[in-house]
Amino acid sequence: MRALVYDGSLKLTDIEMAPLRSGEARIKVLLAGICNTDLEICRGYMNYQGILGHEFVGIVTEAAADCDPAEAQKWLGRRVVGEINCGCGHCCLCAQGDTRHCAARTTLGIDRHPGVMASYCTLPFANLYAVPNEVSDSQAVFTEPLAAAWNILEQVHIIPSDRVLLLGDGKLGQLCAQTVRLSGCDLTAVGKHEDKLRLLEPFNVRVRLLNDWMAERSAEPAYDIVIEATGSAGGLELALQAVRPRGTIVLKTTVTERSQLDLAPIVVHEIKIIGSRCGRFAPALRALQQGVIHVEPLIAGTYDLADGVEAFALAKKSSLKVLLRV
Amino acid sequence: MRALVYDGSLKLTDIEMAPLRSGEARIKVLLAGICNTDLEICRGYMNYQGILGHEFVGIVTEAAADCDPAEAQKWLGRRVVGEINCGCGHCCLCAQGDTRHCAARTTLGIDRHPGVMASYCTLPFANLYAVPNEVSDSQAVFTEPLAAAWNILEQVHIIPSDRVLLLGDGKLGQLCAQTVRLSGCDLTAVGKHEDKLRLLEPFNVRVRLLNDWMAERSAEPAYDIVIEATGSAGGLELALQAVRPRGTIVLKTTVTERSQLDLAPIVVHEIKIIGSRCGRFAPALRALQQGVIHVEPLIAGTYDLADGVEAFALAKKSSLKVLLRV
Repeated sequence: MRALVYDGSLKLTDIEMAPLRSGEARIKVLLAGICNTDLEICRGYMNYQGILGHEFVGIVTEAAADCDPAEAQKWLGRRVVGEINCGCGHCCLCAQGDTRHCAARTTLGIDRHPGVMASYCTLPFANLYAVPNEVSDSQAVFTEPLAAAWNILEQVHIIPSDRVLLLGDGKLGQLCAQTVRLSGCDLTAVGKHEDKLRLLEPFNVRVRLLNDWMAERSAEPAYDIVIEATGSAGGLELALQAVRPRGTIVLKTTVTERSQLDLAPIVVHEIKIIGSRCGRFAPALRALQQGVIHVEPLIAGTYDLADGVEAFALAKKSSLKVLLRV
Repeated sequence: MRALVYDGSLKLTDIEMAPLRSGEARIKVLLAGICNTDLEICRGYMNYQGILGHEFVGIVTEAAADCDPAEAQKWLGRRVVGEINCGCGHCCLCAQGDTRHCAARTTLGIDRHPGVMASYCTLPFANLYAVPNEVSDSQAVFTEPLAAAWNILEQVHIIPSDRVLLLGDGKLGQLCAQTVRLSGCDLTAVGKHEDKLRLLEPFNVRVRLLNDWMAERSAEPAYDIVIEATGSAGGLELALQAVRPRGTIVLKTTVTERSQLDLAPIVVHEIKIIGSRCGRFAPALRALQQGVIHVEPLIAGTYDLADGVEAFALAKKSSLKVLLRV
């Protein structure tokens, strides 16, 4: 099958379809999304080599031989998205249903599990979610990053009177802004790109260009909560300058390089920093179905998988979402 | 009056007594304690120059002219300790009683307020706490660092079934261990000094030498909560290796230098990091009065203020508490 692979360099290649493992489904990929993590992997993050990609929507085509036939029958032909962490199935975290933090987990297209930028991908049936009819393919492919945004609301109780600052106007920042504003909080988004910030205006999010905000921020009160989704190593330092004493920073960015950081302000101002990664798919799908999140304006372009290398080049330049049609 | 001053170098000197400001008490210092922060100030932390020290017990000798005479009379001659942050008195944080985070605050011996390693010090009456008769001078002088340890229990709900790791066997680590173990949690303390770790044995705290723990830790489950009180820039990285996914790190160390840190594990494992600095004096004094915290074994030596420079040299070598008799 055709696949977009990173093995030290990025290339489109032909690859043999892997046999299904116990409990797994094979899924014909319809659309895949390019995430910053994919770009980071191409810079060495996680030392991952193999088929890239973890954001997808597809159709279930095959079930592993050991699957319950009635159960498998229910899924075959269904349009699905899938949680990206595959747990060991028997540790205490997996027993609690949190495969996201299983120490032995593999992760789709990130850690020892072939990714989705290929004709087919595989995932355990337990990871799959049926996509409601009201949700289009190009909406459904946003389920994974949208779940990561909704994860913020699982981790932090944002109340309507909170002053919240979002740093970053890229694809994750946009999804975080659309999600977090649903809490009713007083939300300001700061970013580097006027055109991207403008996308937030229909949602009544106050937007500021980074340079303007940097120049004026000493005059404004500090923020109760700062969401760091800059995608750059310096984001946390910026967040530390903006948050109030005893305030909360939600850290979303993962980068390869080590950061040079003055930790003293964390202690002196008693800041709470909460790392935030993957979220649950169910709330994200619900939000898409209910139409409270608008992902279409976030699509920078849709490429055929055959033009995957070109698509990655665009994704590096644009901070919006580049999709691959498979 | 005699005073131990840092002005680029550490020296004992004669200094004029400052006039009392509005609402202030003058306090004859009996005992002062040397904190790691004092040592850090001598390495440039906070750019502070002036009389050092913020841990003390003393006797109120004088009240500013604008104090209510009846109120002042109540305090004169009383043995006191004092909270170290002096708020502006009219911002919203001060209005809530939290001068510890007032943006305009000065801090005793740390930031624009002369310290306590002198014949006399000054503080607003609002900062003072009378020392109960049952609490000796050499116990009372621990109120400030003990309050910093109790602050952990104000910030994090440690439950009896939590596995807690304490990194650091110095003076703050010791106070944290004695405090945190009162939660009933399963506490392990890791440090570099066999003699210091031995001090924790009467409190039924499991102790491990750092090197032994480093060699064996991959075999043990991760900790729910890690309290970082190493006093060194590398402490957070060590804590990140020991905490479980979605666990909590309480960060106590403030150092001058910037840290080189890989932030990705915070996000990937969704760790919560909580900076923790000063605490309330009332619970610390209560604990000393009730006899549930034992500070005497933590005293490395008591020097006359005249030998202050020598005392700082010992404090640099010992990680236990060096006191100054004034």
